[in-house]
Amino acid sequence: MGIVLGPTQYGKAETRVVRIYREEPEHQIRDLNVSTALRGEFADAHLTGDQARVLPTDTQKNTIYAFAGERGVGEIEDFALALALHFVEDVEPVAAARVDVDEYLWERAMVGGQPHPHAFVRSGQEIRTASAIVEGSGGSMVVWVLAGLRDLVVLKSTGSEFAGFLKDRFTTLAETHDRVLATSLTARWRYVRPDDVDFDGTYADVRRLLVEQFAAVHSLALQQTLWEMGRAVLEAHEEIAEIRLSAPNKHHFLVDLAPFGLENPGEVFHADDRPYGLIQCAVERDDAPPAGPSFEPPASFA
Amino acid sequence: MGIVLGPTQYGKAETRVVRIYREEPEHQIRDLNVSTALRGEFADAHLTGDQARVLPTDTQKNTIYAFAGERGVGEIEDFALALALHFVEDVEPVAAARVDVDEYLWERAMVGGQPHPHAFVRSGQEIRTASAIVEGSGGSMVVWVLAGLRDLVVLKSTGSEFAGFLKDRFTTLAETHDRVLATSLTARWRYVRPDDVDFDGTYADVRRLLVEQFAAVHSLALQQTLWEMGRAVLEAHEEIAEIRLSAPNKHHFLVDLAPFGLENPGEVFHADDRPYGLIQCAVERDDAPPAGPSFEPPASFA
Amino acid sequence: MGIVLGPTQYGKAETRVVRIYREEPEHQIRDLNVSTALRGEFADAHLTGDQARVLPTDTQKNTIYAFAGERGVGEIEDFALALALHFVEDVEPVAAARVDVDEYLWERAMVGGQPHPHAFVRSGQEIRTASAIVEGSGGSMVVWVLAGLRDLVVLKSTGSEFAGFLKDRFTTLAETHDRVLATSLTARWRYVRPDDVDFDGTYADVRRLLVEQFAAVHSLALQQTLWEMGRAVLEAHEEIAEIRLSAPNKHHFLVDLAPFGLENPGEVFHADDRPYGLIQCAVERDDAPPAGPSFEPPASFA
Amino acid sequence: MGIVLGPTQYGKAETRVVRIYREEPEHQIRDLNVSTALRGEFADAHLTGDQARVLPTDTQKNTIYAFAGERGVGEIEDFALALALHFVEDVEPVAAARVDVDEYLWERAMVGGQPHPHAFVRSGQEIRTASAIVEGSGGSMVVWVLAGLRDLVVLKSTGSEFAGFLKDRFTTLAETHDRVLATSLTARWRYVRPDDVDFDGTYADVRRLLVEQFAAVHSLALQQTLWEMGRAVLEAHEEIAEIRLSAPNKHHFLVDLAPFGLENPGEVFHADDRPYGLIQCAVERDDAPPAGPSFEPPASFA
Repeated sequence: MGIVLGPTQYGKAETRVVRIYREEPEHQIRDLNVSTALRGEFADAHLTGDQARVLPTDTQKNTIYAFAGERGVGEIEDFALALALHFVEDVEPVAAARVDVDEYLWERAMVGGQPHPHAFVRSGQEIRTASAIVEGSGGSMVVWVLAGLRDLVVLKSTGSEFAGFLKDRFTTLAETHDRVLATSLTARWRYVRPDDVDFDGTYADVRRLLVEQFAAVHSLALQQTLWEMGRAVLEAHEEIAEIRLSAPNKHHFLVDLAPFGLENPGEVFHADDRPYGLIQCAVERDDAPPAGPSFEPPASFA
Repeated sequence: MGIVLGPTQYGKAETRVVRIYREEPEHQIRDLNVSTALRGEFADAHLTGDQARVLPTDTQKNTIYAFAGERGVGEIEDFALALALHFVEDVEPVAAARVDVDEYLWERAMVGGQPHPHAFVRSGQEIRTASAIVEGSGGSMVVWVLAGLRDLVVLKSTGSEFAGFLKDRFTTLAETHDRVLATSLTARWRYVRPDDVDFDGTYADVRRLLVEQFAAVHSLALQQTLWEMGRAVLEAHEEIAEIRLSAPNKHHFLVDLAPFGLENPGEVFHADDRPYGLIQCAVERDDAPPAGPSFEPPASFA
Repeated sequence: MGIVLGPTQYGKAETRVVRIYREEPEHQIRDLNVSTALRGEFADAHLTGDQARVLPTDTQKNTIYAFAGERGVGEIEDFALALALHFVEDVEPVAAARVDVDEYLWERAMVGGQPHPHAFVRSGQEIRTASAIVEGSGGSMVVWVLAGLRDLVVLKSTGSEFAGFLKDRFTTLAETHDRVLATSLTARWRYVRPDDVDFDGTYADVRRLLVEQFAAVHSLALQQTLWEMGRAVLEAHEEIAEIRLSAPNKHHFLVDLAPFGLENPGEVFHADDRPYGLIQCAVERDDAPPAGPSFEPPASFA
Repeated sequence: MGIVLGPTQYGKAETRVVRIYREEPEHQIRDLNVSTALRGEFADAHLTGDQARVLPTDTQKNTIYAFAGERGVGEIEDFALALALHFVEDVEPVAAARVDVDEYLWERAMVGGQPHPHAFVRSGQEIRTASAIVEGSGGSMVVWVLAGLRDLVVLKSTGSEFAGFLKDRFTTLAETHDRVLATSLTARWRYVRPDDVDFDGTYADVRRLLVEQFAAVHSLALQQTLWEMGRAVLEAHEEIAEIRLSAPNKHHFLVDLAPFGLENPGEVFHADDRPYGLIQCAVERDDAPPAGPSFEPPASFA
């Protein structure tokens, strides 16, 4: 019986790079939080402390900045993929690389009713995400590219039920045919072939579909809403192999106003913090290529 | 020499009340975080533990919910004022009351290009705020009403300088005539007379002016930008006596790409978290009524 | 080509249950944050909205409270396992259950140099964690139990090097033979057989070993420190099959005081927030049973 | 009627400086978060953008690092005061300065039962704080020095009542003679004369007294507990003029287990996040010198 080193990875997390495009009078901005994780032949670094095969995380940070300058950022899926390919192809000990990107979104400031050329306001609550994973080299290289969003906070004030559920000794919940449904949506989807995708356009359309389905589907449960969201996305986008959705059920409890001689016909709610339901599902094509490690959460391991 | 009780206050912080208006097919939503603080004759509660004059914080929470149901929320400045007046006028031991409200803003979900009647998406980054303070009773009652916002995140990619500053032994900063300027703005303004104000309309217009000034003013320093913001607000709104602005200078440092053989003409920045400059100023009318305790921070004391 | 439902799970996240033991004059406290996740035959809930097989997350919350009352909490690994077994064995549609527990630690308040019987102070920074996963039923049931901690913040002011590393075009980092090494450690370990373990005693001893190794090992890299931590734990504890360690390298940068005419021989540092290195590894027995889904992060999916 | 600049201040917030003392084999560490705020003749910076009298916030940061190197940190009250005096005395346009310090506390790692000379573990939950405010110059200079703590999380599982309180139309709370009482204490105290105080020793003793009073006082309300805490501190420490206490009442609600056929004699609680009561009071000497601006919250203004 021996004690051995198991899987390892290392990288630089949360490099906050802002890229301004200023060739035109109308500046563009891409505001990113980039994390890298490398896997490969790094056992010596652990077992003997020998760093000869370790590309420092500081170098990985520098690489992000240099790529942002030299090639630009462009679509974050492309940027993540370019970085991941670089690490696998150009750094000999690296057998696999994962690059996760958060993008903070901005819209132009309005001045006198016109969009301003170089002033911006952070838009919305949601964060756009992308991940690229590259494993292997040459003909055996496999590539995954994911896009997504998180913190998309949505609420509907009616059109949501929860009834007919399983009951056991510990069930006290009353059935309801009209409740507030609210969530802070996380969605990640992976592309069938990432080499020919309009990433910005697809992102905008997937976000549109998610919001539309949340609004339009009469919900019998958050489970059903998520399925309908995912199905709509896959029906509209052949380039997407799979989408995974994670949705906290942010409970809004109807406040009992009877002690004060008042009725409360679905008008006054307490928005609770914890606990929350957490509903998660995948919707996928039955002929989708394998997901591999693509849905491993960014920078999570132990 | 004696040890005595000094100033005291108590209340319920962060009651999360969501009010839905559903009389019309197009629902409305007001999503609030309400904090109350009462001052008055509460020494016995401290000195002997006698609670006979203490209205429980639980009751204050209930009052918020009941008011949200019975009178509705409407504009949050009005809602805060109604609550503060209630505590002072209807609860005998209360000599002064402060009510602070955060409002989380929602916009309608779009379905098929049309706004949906009962589905909403959280909008923007900023939180709208209001405060009402009521002191005294009858003819000697004084009332302050403040509106505001926080977490309004803005950035300009040029049009900002910082040069000609004071230097001492510890100064190493280089002068610059072109930098990124970014902040997460907090603004609070108080009304001359709160009994006849279009609070929703004024909020929207003040927000518009703050963004416009941030964008349009060529900035020699964040100090100057704040002054021009405040001046514009007071020039446009006679109903506002004073505005206070607090702006962290969210530093974006130009990354040195020279070691990689690259130039960086204002394109690649590191967005740093800490430390940050913190610039704060008030802009006021010279005939404004006294601010009294109105700008004390919500729920801060010790 | 069809669109199908993929993996799903649902549960109640972050139920904050505090259990007081008050039979003896010296009260005991166990302060928990419990999350459940169930997998099984829940496709109808998604596809048609039929909830007949869905045990509400509200019921899962109630179950946590009822178990805390009826059987007590005791060691959190046991508590998590009891809950997971209940869901799989007693709720027919449930094929697998995962229960994750965070425990906030308290120590007795000292009064006159003596521990107080019913007053407590939160101790330390770290949070103790446990996870139980149960899959299948009857003879094919498989059980995993993990223990762990997170937010164990440690720092050494010398005894750490980083040199001899790989260099490429983007490397600018200077080698160092004396630096500050600091991290906020996450560790999770799984037990070979969870039916006969002194969980509280093992937790205390693993924490002791992790701190000792961090302190005593002369570090050539955080990678090496983690390996030595893990090896020491497995050498001392036969009941542990595997340990996984995740350690952000919380960078402390030596401040250049030369512009002020001062030297800085390893005395003044800037503690930076982001980015940070993130080093992760597993240390395992070569005859360990399979990890299965045990190291999936709590409540992470999409 | 004119629009004028009101009060202003500016500074560098949250400089994270770590000072290691390594002259002896047993290293010492002081781990600080320092914020500065200057007031004075800075109107030109706002009104015209002229920075000639503005010491950059970057310089203030440098000053913190240089002072940490040259004079060392020592007790944080002394360090804050040295910085505030420097800004007022050495930087001509500065009329007043405020320096706020958070100190993160460390204890030595234990190895083989012995404290390690250069490895540390973050201790406890609480953060130690200090503030120094200097106004004016020469004979009219006034100095305030405050010490404090925050995030001291304490809980008692019995020995707390809340009954006999005022009731109105909105009161539904039941009286109780046995409840869990928990808070996350913020305390700040100011010294009569800061030039001859054992700051480290006094901090330790005040913390001891606060915990002892929380534990030992049979509480009829959090108000009473705070008063008894403050009184004990002032009785024991003549050098303290005033103490202010702010305590969220972190509610622990007894869970109703009756639906499951179980009793709950004060054993199972739900620890709620929001809302919370917020109880605040000052305890002071009747001959204390004026508090002036000393209790203004750090870095809060608008």
